[in-house]
Amino acid sequence: MAIFMGFEMDPKLSVAEVQAFLSREFPQMADDYRVEAVGPMTAQIRLSPDTKHLRPGGTISGPTMFSLADCAVYLCVIAMVGPEALAVTTNASIDFMRKPEANTDLLADVTLLKLGRGLVVGDVRIRSDGSDQLVARATLTYSRPR
Amino acid sequence: MAIFMGFEMDPKLSVAEVQAFLSREFPQMADDYRVEAVGPMTAQIRLSPDTKHLRPGGTISGPTMFSLADCAVYLCVIAMVGPEALAVTTNASIDFMRKPEANTDLLADVTLLKLGRGLVVGDVRIRSDGSDQLVARATLTYSRPR
Amino acid sequence: MAIFMGFEMDPKLSVAEVQAFLSREFPQMADDYRVEAVGPMTAQIRLSPDTKHLRPGGTISGPTMFSLADCAVYLCVIAMVGPEALAVTTNASIDFMRKPEANTDLLADVTLLKLGRGLVVGDVRIRSDGSDQLVARATLTYSRPR
Amino acid sequence: MAIFMGFEMDPKLSVAEVQAFLSREFPQMADDYRVEAVGPMTAQIRLSPDTKHLRPGGTISGPTMFSLADCAVYLCVIAMVGPEALAVTTNASIDFMRKPEANTDLLADVTLLKLGRGLVVGDVRIRSDGSDQLVARATLTYSRPR
Repeated sequence: MAIFMGFEMDPKLSVAEVQAFLSREFPQMADDYRVEAVGPMTAQIRLSPDTKHLRPGGTISGPTMFSLADCAVYLCVIAMVGPEALAVTTNASIDFMRKPEANTDLLADVTLLKLGRGLVVGDVRIRSDGSDQLVARATLTYSRPR
Repeated sequence: MAIFMGFEMDPKLSVAEVQAFLSREFPQMADDYRVEAVGPMTAQIRLSPDTKHLRPGGTISGPTMFSLADCAVYLCVIAMVGPEALAVTTNASIDFMRKPEANTDLLADVTLLKLGRGLVVGDVRIRSDGSDQLVARATLTYSRPR
Repeated sequence: MAIFMGFEMDPKLSVAEVQAFLSREFPQMADDYRVEAVGPMTAQIRLSPDTKHLRPGGTISGPTMFSLADCAVYLCVIAMVGPEALAVTTNASIDFMRKPEANTDLLADVTLLKLGRGLVVGDVRIRSDGSDQLVARATLTYSRPR
Repeated sequence: MAIFMGFEMDPKLSVAEVQAFLSREFPQMADDYRVEAVGPMTAQIRLSPDTKHLRPGGTISGPTMFSLADCAVYLCVIAMVGPEALAVTTNASIDFMRKPEANTDLLADVTLLKLGRGLVVGDVRIRSDGSDQLVARATLTYSRPR
């Protein structure tokens, strides 16, 4: 596995560079997401919900969490390999386990389980800021163009 | 299975009633989605994308398709059982198979594979209007409150 | 999509040829599975359960159904493209919806939703022979070697 | 969440008790699986493959890994709550990421992400003994009878 040969273990981009990439390429999402950390095969992304993310009762919607998970894996890949030609999501599964707390940011912690030349598999754990209980857990597969 | 005893086979709500439910309960989504059809264990929902749904290149984003799938199953459940207390998504998996056509509506065809007292499983097939090729296929599980 | 250009629409192998492939390549499985039908992007595979597939109470185990789904997609791919170098399963999701009937064969109906050069996505619906209710529904992704 | 109130955090059964449960309830599987460890919301299960688990080339089959994941979550639930009436798998998704090493045991590490009264969600990471690279990662949902 390339990821254990060293040269792919450290992220190529810094937090600021990933945030800048997001602002440049996905300006409509850049206000919602903040890159908190990047590391070897990992990243943490913060979502500050506004009204468009909420469901009746003030809870954050499932699709908002899906979107956060999808974005978080994508940004982690970009951090690791640099701003390469667009990888696409081919598969995702998500378990919604608890209600997020109202009026609270969500934090998504990504770990890339596999960073292959063809397929990337990312694990995402989402929780409300200040809590260590998972509200959702997702697995996403990205296909990298060859 | 209750669903083969007849009394649950026909939808309780009409297209207009499901659309009215959507407008009342999820006003922020009602502009995006249109209920095209409801039938025994089935529904068809249309998404007319606007700029917030698009990715660079004019293609519709994965989270938009996830959101459509999630909403479509939910509305199909509501059509079948009436506007009951809120069911929640517990699990979803989605395969993205082709790029949707730019500037084209998406149609989501739902079939409920199981409508149990506890769990509901819905199959969703998404395609661009005018095409019969699937752009995505999702399976969602909803848990009904007891 | 290649699959709509005609030359990939019809299976390259017959029922007998797929069954022979199974016997030759996977002799340990060939006693359990019978190829019932192949068609354009479709196949039907039968499992006749014996004691190793059963759980207490005579019901067929979940892993047996997973195995049937995995095998069914694989054989459908082989039927469509011929006995090519080994494709591998990269992702699978399965919903178990009802208990299979005891002492009854299972039938798996596969449809390939996508037959790309890189990835193949197959839908599998499993039911007890003689019933039209689904006991399980699976989606599998295979990666084809390049 | 009950799981953070303490009384459910520690396993009710020991390694020996879980192994004895497996032998008693699933004798046909007890030769293949060995319970290596149980802990708060966690368990480790070992599979020593024999010829029925192998594919051409000596690699362990995907269904064998699925079966291991399914069994591992089940045994972890039993360890936590005691030998209760049979929980059933309702959903599973699995990513196969690397080839297991030939002629090598597999280790499955389970963590229960949620242990609710109705639904249980378990995360399973599978690797070849002696390696820290994942060969597969699965998420399973069990429904507990009420």
